[in-house]
Amino acid sequence: MLKTLYFNEKTMQLLLIDQVRIPETITYVACDTVEALITAIQGMVVRGAPAIGVAACFGCVLAANEVADTPTWREELAQKIDQLAQARPTAVNLSWACTHMLNHLHRHAPANPAQAKKLLLAEALRMEAKDITTNRAIGRFGATLLADGDCVLTHCNAGALATVAYGTALGVIRHAVADGKRIQVIADETRPLFQGARLTAQELLLDGIPVTVACDNACCLLMMQGRINRVVVGADRIAKNGDTANKIGTAGVAVLAHHFGIPFYVAAPLSTIDPTIATGKDIPIEERGRDEVACVNGKALVPEGVPVINYAFDVTPQAYISAIITEAGILTPPYDEAITKAFAGELC
Amino acid sequence: MLKTLYFNEKTMQLLLIDQVRIPETITYVACDTVEALITAIQGMVVRGAPAIGVAACFGCVLAANEVADTPTWREELAQKIDQLAQARPTAVNLSWACTHMLNHLHRHAPANPAQAKKLLLAEALRMEAKDITTNRAIGRFGATLLADGDCVLTHCNAGALATVAYGTALGVIRHAVADGKRIQVIADETRPLFQGARLTAQELLLDGIPVTVACDNACCLLMMQGRINRVVVGADRIAKNGDTANKIGTAGVAVLAHHFGIPFYVAAPLSTIDPTIATGKDIPIEERGRDEVACVNGKALVPEGVPVINYAFDVTPQAYISAIITEAGILTPPYDEAITKAFAGELC
Repeated sequence: MLKTLYFNEKTMQLLLIDQVRIPETITYVACDTVEALITAIQGMVVRGAPAIGVAACFGCVLAANEVADTPTWREELAQKIDQLAQARPTAVNLSWACTHMLNHLHRHAPANPAQAKKLLLAEALRMEAKDITTNRAIGRFGATLLADGDCVLTHCNAGALATVAYGTALGVIRHAVADGKRIQVIADETRPLFQGARLTAQELLLDGIPVTVACDNACCLLMMQGRINRVVVGADRIAKNGDTANKIGTAGVAVLAHHFGIPFYVAAPLSTIDPTIATGKDIPIEERGRDEVACVNGKALVPEGVPVINYAFDVTPQAYISAIITEAGILTPPYDEAITKAFAGELC
Repeated sequence: MLKTLYFNEKTMQLLLIDQVRIPETITYVACDTVEALITAIQGMVVRGAPAIGVAACFGCVLAANEVADTPTWREELAQKIDQLAQARPTAVNLSWACTHMLNHLHRHAPANPAQAKKLLLAEALRMEAKDITTNRAIGRFGATLLADGDCVLTHCNAGALATVAYGTALGVIRHAVADGKRIQVIADETRPLFQGARLTAQELLLDGIPVTVACDNACCLLMMQGRINRVVVGADRIAKNGDTANKIGTAGVAVLAHHFGIPFYVAAPLSTIDPTIATGKDIPIEERGRDEVACVNGKALVPEGVPVINYAFDVTPQAYISAIITEAGILTPPYDEAITKAFAGELC
């Protein structure tokens, strides 16, 4: 399985698999500063809410490594972590991870940057390991929702490459396959950056799970043909009422699935749920540059002078979500209640 | 305005604007045989149901030009025209045009290929001119459905480039603009061949009509944001009950428009209506090659070994179509009845 990221303690570098270049080539980008990591996050070298979250944990280690032992080191470190938290706006895991690491610092009150670095590194490694455990738990719960012979549509990449390993939506599929169920996957190509065509297809090919790529706009036809039994996607931020921000196009798939009576599942760790936000309308939606839409493989498709729309995410209203699969169990409507229970450890 | 095709009577060549290469470059491909035209149609040098229809009329002239004056010239000509009719399966205008030209031949019973050529050329030129008149009539009727300030979503290209000139869906928009209405257009990029990003954007840019390109999967978000007031698309074949085959993705847009209460209009000439087909389930849907989806601008996006789905069209059920705009007037449900009236000249 492809390894999304790993931290080299000797060189103090975070190594990120370059997701922009898959499937053309498998290479790693080394980040040894917070600034380099911010560039990598914004350039989508690393993407996927949980992967960005863990990368940010290691980013806090890089921050501590960069800070000199002066009387203001605490402020400087906090400032760097704050910059990192703002690299991209939509996925809550990024700010969640940064806040978590800052809280960890405050709780343990290290005396100097070296101590802080040690402390943060231990916590980042714990978070890295926890991500895998979380995904396996999501997979275990979610697999119960898939039946032998199902054809599952997924959008974007919520796989090993969107996490440390195993994946959320693809973790559900992997677990079902490991349970002996025959599952076929249709991967939406996911314009503009083709994460479905490039990343989901690559991951499942390596795993030997049958996968077919379709253009995003084929979804309705495939549903009308009765070829899709379930939809499983990941999430970038889930509001308290269950409204879910995920890759642009997800909401359309959800409305169509609802229309055709096809179950639509979101698979995400509890860290993706933002209980400070009541509904999806308060989730900030990132807009990205023109070239992602207007040019593909270095060549222009849209005539010069014509503007493009490039929202990176949309918000699926909770009414179209059949269930949210978390490491604490399967959440069903009303989500407000279910989310409160999940955070209180009262689910499963 | 870009000229989709013209026939050079001196060289006996049909010149087709190469739609595969727009906006990169504006060049023409010369076809002097039926075989060359079939290749151009299959390779999408010329596309759009009405444009293919008129190209096929001229293709019949090329066929007559190719046939030697032997005792079997009639059979040979009919065979060539039959081959042409089968170049692509979904758009009915192609076979409609071929049948029309064959009937024209039979009615006038030319004595030899030279007479046939002359006869077919006159008819092809008449059909070419008629296409423009038809589009202007569609535009005039359709424009009454658009309001000043509307933002209209269109999918694929149903413009001048899909017809001889003016366009069907874009003809409606052009007519509304000529009537003094301020109209903004959002062009779905239309994967896999980007006809929206490339052709619709190019046409409207040249006309000075404000156009913005969005990925197909942004449609739901834009509708949820309330940015889209109307949808107008073209058609490749309309069944007797109103079910409409059009570029892949159209059905999804229609279901979403229905869901969000946005009027969804189909603009097409009567020649696109196939009264021999009762419902959309009998419309043959063309499947095209892997590379159209898997490679963009010559570079692979989908890993080798992963199959793709590439249906060129889908069928929008009539229930999601608010009206069908034809040169005979605006058809509203029940379409079966409205279509019968339109063919009988009892509409308007």
